[in-house]
Amino acid sequence: MKILLIASAVLLFGCVGFAQSQPQLNLMPMPSSVQLGAGQLRIDRSFSATVTGSRDGRLERGVARFLRQLARETGIPISPNRDSGAKPTLTIHAAHEAQRVQQLGEDESYELVVGEAGATLNAPNTLGILHGLQTFLELVQVSPNGFAVPALTIKDQPRFPWRGLLIDVGRHFIPLDFLKRNVDGMEAVKMNVLHWHLYDHEGFRIESKKFPKLQEDGSDGQYYTQEQIREFVAYAYDRGIRVMPEFEMPGHSSSMFVGYPKLASGPGPYKLEPGGPPTAMDPTREDTYKFLEKFLDEMTKLFPDQYVHIGGDEVDPRPWNTNPKIQEFMHEHGMKDVKDLQAYFNQRVEKILSKQHKTMMGWDEVLHPELPKSIVVQSWRGAESLATAAQQGYNTILSFGYYLDLMWPASRHYAMDPISGAAAALSPEQKRRILGGEACMWGEWIVGENIDSRVWPRNAPIAERLWSPAEVQDPTSMYARMDDLSWKLQRLGLTHRSSFEMAMRRMAGTDDIESLETLADVVEPVKDYTRMDSLKTVWDFRAPLNRLVDFVPPESDEGRLFQEWVQTYIRSGYKDQASAEHIRSSLMEWRNNDAKLQPVLNRSFLTQELAPLSTDLAAMGSAGLSAMDCLEKSLPCTEQWRTQQLSVVEGVRKPKADLLLTVASPVQQLIEASAMADRR
Amino acid sequence: MKILLIASAVLLFGCVGFAQSQPQLNLMPMPSSVQLGAGQLRIDRSFSATVTGSRDGRLERGVARFLRQLARETGIPISPNRDSGAKPTLTIHAAHEAQRVQQLGEDESYELVVGEAGATLNAPNTLGILHGLQTFLELVQVSPNGFAVPALTIKDQPRFPWRGLLIDVGRHFIPLDFLKRNVDGMEAVKMNVLHWHLYDHEGFRIESKKFPKLQEDGSDGQYYTQEQIREFVAYAYDRGIRVMPEFEMPGHSSSMFVGYPKLASGPGPYKLEPGGPPTAMDPTREDTYKFLEKFLDEMTKLFPDQYVHIGGDEVDPRPWNTNPKIQEFMHEHGMKDVKDLQAYFNQRVEKILSKQHKTMMGWDEVLHPELPKSIVVQSWRGAESLATAAQQGYNTILSFGYYLDLMWPASRHYAMDPISGAAAALSPEQKRRILGGEACMWGEWIVGENIDSRVWPRNAPIAERLWSPAEVQDPTSMYARMDDLSWKLQRLGLTHRSSFEMAMRRMAGTDDIESLETLADVVEPVKDYTRMDSLKTVWDFRAPLNRLVDFVPPESDEGRLFQEWVQTYIRSGYKDQASAEHIRSSLMEWRNNDAKLQPVLNRSFLTQELAPLSTDLAAMGSAGLSAMDCLEKSLPCTEQWRTQQLSVVEGVRKPKADLLLTVASPVQQLIEASAMADRR
Repeated sequence: MKILLIASAVLLFGCVGFAQSQPQLNLMPMPSSVQLGAGQLRIDRSFSATVTGSRDGRLERGVARFLRQLARETGIPISPNRDSGAKPTLTIHAAHEAQRVQQLGEDESYELVVGEAGATLNAPNTLGILHGLQTFLELVQVSPNGFAVPALTIKDQPRFPWRGLLIDVGRHFIPLDFLKRNVDGMEAVKMNVLHWHLYDHEGFRIESKKFPKLQEDGSDGQYYTQEQIREFVAYAYDRGIRVMPEFEMPGHSSSMFVGYPKLASGPGPYKLEPGGPPTAMDPTREDTYKFLEKFLDEMTKLFPDQYVHIGGDEVDPRPWNTNPKIQEFMHEHGMKDVKDLQAYFNQRVEKILSKQHKTMMGWDEVLHPELPKSIVVQSWRGAESLATAAQQGYNTILSFGYYLDLMWPASRHYAMDPISGAAAALSPEQKRRILGGEACMWGEWIVGENIDSRVWPRNAPIAERLWSPAEVQDPTSMYARMDDLSWKLQRLGLTHRSSFEMAMRRMAGTDDIESLETLADVVEPVKDYTRMDSLKTVWDFRAPLNRLVDFVPPESDEGRLFQEWVQTYIRSGYKDQASAEHIRSSLMEWRNNDAKLQPVLNRSFLTQELAPLSTDLAAMGSAGLSAMDCLEKSLPCTEQWRTQQLSVVEGVRKPKADLLLTVASPVQQLIEASAMADRR
Repeated sequence: MKILLIASAVLLFGCVGFAQSQPQLNLMPMPSSVQLGAGQLRIDRSFSATVTGSRDGRLERGVARFLRQLARETGIPISPNRDSGAKPTLTIHAAHEAQRVQQLGEDESYELVVGEAGATLNAPNTLGILHGLQTFLELVQVSPNGFAVPALTIKDQPRFPWRGLLIDVGRHFIPLDFLKRNVDGMEAVKMNVLHWHLYDHEGFRIESKKFPKLQEDGSDGQYYTQEQIREFVAYAYDRGIRVMPEFEMPGHSSSMFVGYPKLASGPGPYKLEPGGPPTAMDPTREDTYKFLEKFLDEMTKLFPDQYVHIGGDEVDPRPWNTNPKIQEFMHEHGMKDVKDLQAYFNQRVEKILSKQHKTMMGWDEVLHPELPKSIVVQSWRGAESLATAAQQGYNTILSFGYYLDLMWPASRHYAMDPISGAAAALSPEQKRRILGGEACMWGEWIVGENIDSRVWPRNAPIAERLWSPAEVQDPTSMYARMDDLSWKLQRLGLTHRSSFEMAMRRMAGTDDIESLETLADVVEPVKDYTRMDSLKTVWDFRAPLNRLVDFVPPESDEGRLFQEWVQTYIRSGYKDQASAEHIRSSLMEWRNNDAKLQPVLNRSFLTQELAPLSTDLAAMGSAGLSAMDCLEKSLPCTEQWRTQQLSVVEGVRKPKADLLLTVASPVQQLIEASAMADRR
């Protein structure tokens, strides 16, 4: 595996002659090298693209798709079979075909040169062309003179060869169309691996013809047929994306035991029900391996990719520790604990996969000296395991820090570099074993309707981390570019923005949602595993996901911007008028919103739980305004007032309806600042 | 053909015990009879539906689709294969299967009874079930206690058996997915005919295997394959919708002549180019009929529907009048004018279709004593031709008054009743020949991206006119219900609302579009054929449709509501405080908007043309505020001021950028009222 060298990380913004009309290049991920030129290439009805080099079907389809996307980005009809004979606007040249089965580490580089008279896109193979076309699309901007792409030279290649997104369809089924949309988004941000977590305790989502009870008994009837799987793999391939399946074992697989209880360590029977007993496969029976061999043989034929993920995480030791037969087996084979037993299981599975010419991959629990160095380790429990695996000679990818289900802000994911911490101290050879990373969209709280808003746009900064030079790390620039990209993704068909508004109307049962939006704009879902941990009963995977927490964006733009205004204001010594006005007008809006919102909330069982949050927001508005009065007039707020207000903030900070009020912190800062003001 | 009797047009809103939680039934089209009961049927996770009667594939798929839609309307997972054995929430019973090929005049009635313990849906056949399921979906509302459907009894059937939507794909190709979305919308409003205008001068959109140059030379490469046609017809059938193809002849068919110039009356060659010469088929050559026989034989096999539309409108007489051979033919056959010649052509085509067991339909120009009474006449040039045709013994449908491309307000379409004017005076037997009507979405100004916003939601009131009792005609109720439906349609996948916002961002090239939205919210596209008529050069069907006029809704909600406020205010003798405040705050917003908007408009060539409109809006804001000052203080505005302001309004009324400012009229009313105020 070869990590491509970064040719240049210098980003030349603000060149003379360019800055006037194009203040910033809205590219995400940022290319490794951009040289701005003078002038622009106009994009109008005469646009045409020509392929001069190697052309495989994937390239042809990619160019046709590019033309459709260009038409959508401009509203200019660009018909597919125009061949005017005139000089083409864009000349596309791939030196060679790419591999028939997309390989890890294939050259994905490209060079895009745009001048006033035309553009050329060169790449060693189709993959680079696909990436370059996406870059070209992102460069199209409207100007006073028409649509145009700035003159420039981009030389680009990924920093890491493995840039993935995991989607878990086990907990909740995600219809194929929704997955395709997300693959479109992945293409836009140059990700190249869709890691498909195909089943889990709660549901088995892929048709097996050899073992049909897997999907028939192991799901609620919602699964992908083999034909759909093939269709999806082809769809992703066309977009430069490998599809790696995950067949989770020996844990996280209760849904398999419903139809085939003999696979399991326990006595069964098993049901698809919330809060079932701990389960794991029985690694001591030869029948288990016979089953898995047949099963994997059938499954891996559906997935041409070299890698097969076998999960291997979070195996509950209880079913093994409480089964005398298994205990006896461990004793006989000199295994000191369940880790040894799992390593034995993994070795057996690895041999099956080897015979099927597949490379095994697993979560970091699979790391064990007995496993061959050919396997790939996916680090999720901490970045240390990444460094450890690389040190021990394993190829490895990072997912710790990239869990989209934890509802972190984009900047936090963005700051997580695979080669940092312990990994930074590795030798160059060891570092090369760090293949990249994967964002993970675990499925406990997602369904088709809200998956887009959980993945996007936060997946884009992760894609940039894995593609762009390590030096590209300014969060302000990232947020600006992510916001721009977010609209492009919506035009591409993703619904991360539109679904939110529709869900609010449905929740409220009315179109009069302005005051609800005011509240919704400043709340965020609780972070980490708080939502799961705070459940009063067992998690019910069949419960509706139709509350505000299920649709509100993981990160509040409004909350982030308010925080920025407050910081500007405080740093200015309470003198900056623009920020003061902005802060005041927001605080007033929040204070006055409650009276309008409460009657709306009361109409629907889905919004009633938001009443305390609305009250809290009004309280923050009032407290903030009082603090502003003190700060602006340099009049002291009494200590008593301050103590009281801070205790209000304390209460406001507590999650309600699984939501957090993002303005509590900045308002607290204003209150605390009012103490400093006294001392001026 | 049987027009079903209206059982009852009484709508019982506001019954005791119901009004408290359900102030209005948001149903569109309104059923012919609704009897409200007491209580509600809860919709929760235990929901199940059972089919007890006849079950054909269409019914099974319809129920599965209903369950998915119900899940989407509530966010409650309702898995397809749940069969708990418990008492079903909804029992569905069709007495018989519907026809394998959907027939005009099939019984579409249904009866829906909802009680607190469950609901039953009964219908003579599958068609009624499909309609009843849509009604059930519309009844689902959120309440403080959960989702629920009010207890009631609905007996419903359509007023007219032919309730259609024409979509023209000749001028601009509309991708199949976009058509499917619109069929989903049609199902929601119980329309039952998709009239597919498959080609026109500008493009031939359907694959012919016998005459492949039709689509190859006659289009820009964008057409439907025969496989797609079959797929689409099946898709529509599943939703209770007949697909009637239109093969336009002898006019509006230049695209056919590009590949087959011998069909035409002129010498050719023909090209797909804006502003070509006038063309028509040559009705004097036997080869023309041989071609048409083969062509129609191939085409009608793709469309199982009984009816085949042959167009027949707007035949340009010049190619016939200037062709000596044709003139000679006319003379020989004793034809006194081109109308006789067209009647001859129509007779010949009718015989071909008769042989193929199809019934011919045509636009009202086909009306000629020589045509058999079996044909159906579609009235577009005026409602009189509808009455005339019915009087002469022809079956007929109305499209005059239902042209969606004319950008009329919904209320204007809604007021057009097929049995009004001359038709009202017909005998009962003649009235029964009026089969219904069709909304027409002509394609000059639509592409895939904006078709939804041109069809929806205005198609819904037309659907109601054709389904509901004639007495259902209150525009206020219509607008309220249409607005509610509009959001449901967006949840169904239509993009009439979301596409507008995305287009504005693209036009402006920025996310800072608040001020642009303020302007966009009060403008409407010019009406009737003004846009076409005002072209300075020939209409270019290849020109981009990416300006504000292409996306702004045909009817401005904001403009309509402002007009209502002004009327309330004037009627109150300038005393009503609520309306005064509303009017003032709008006027102020408009006056102040220009300063924010102009810099935004200036950034993009697509928005620069809006600058004068923004200035106009500010002028209307200022003028309106001055008028309000006069009215509120009962101080006279000077005659000079008034004259001056009215001349400003005069200028503002002129279309700019093909848009009209809707607030000119109400502001003029305020200015004129200020004259009345003087005289108090």
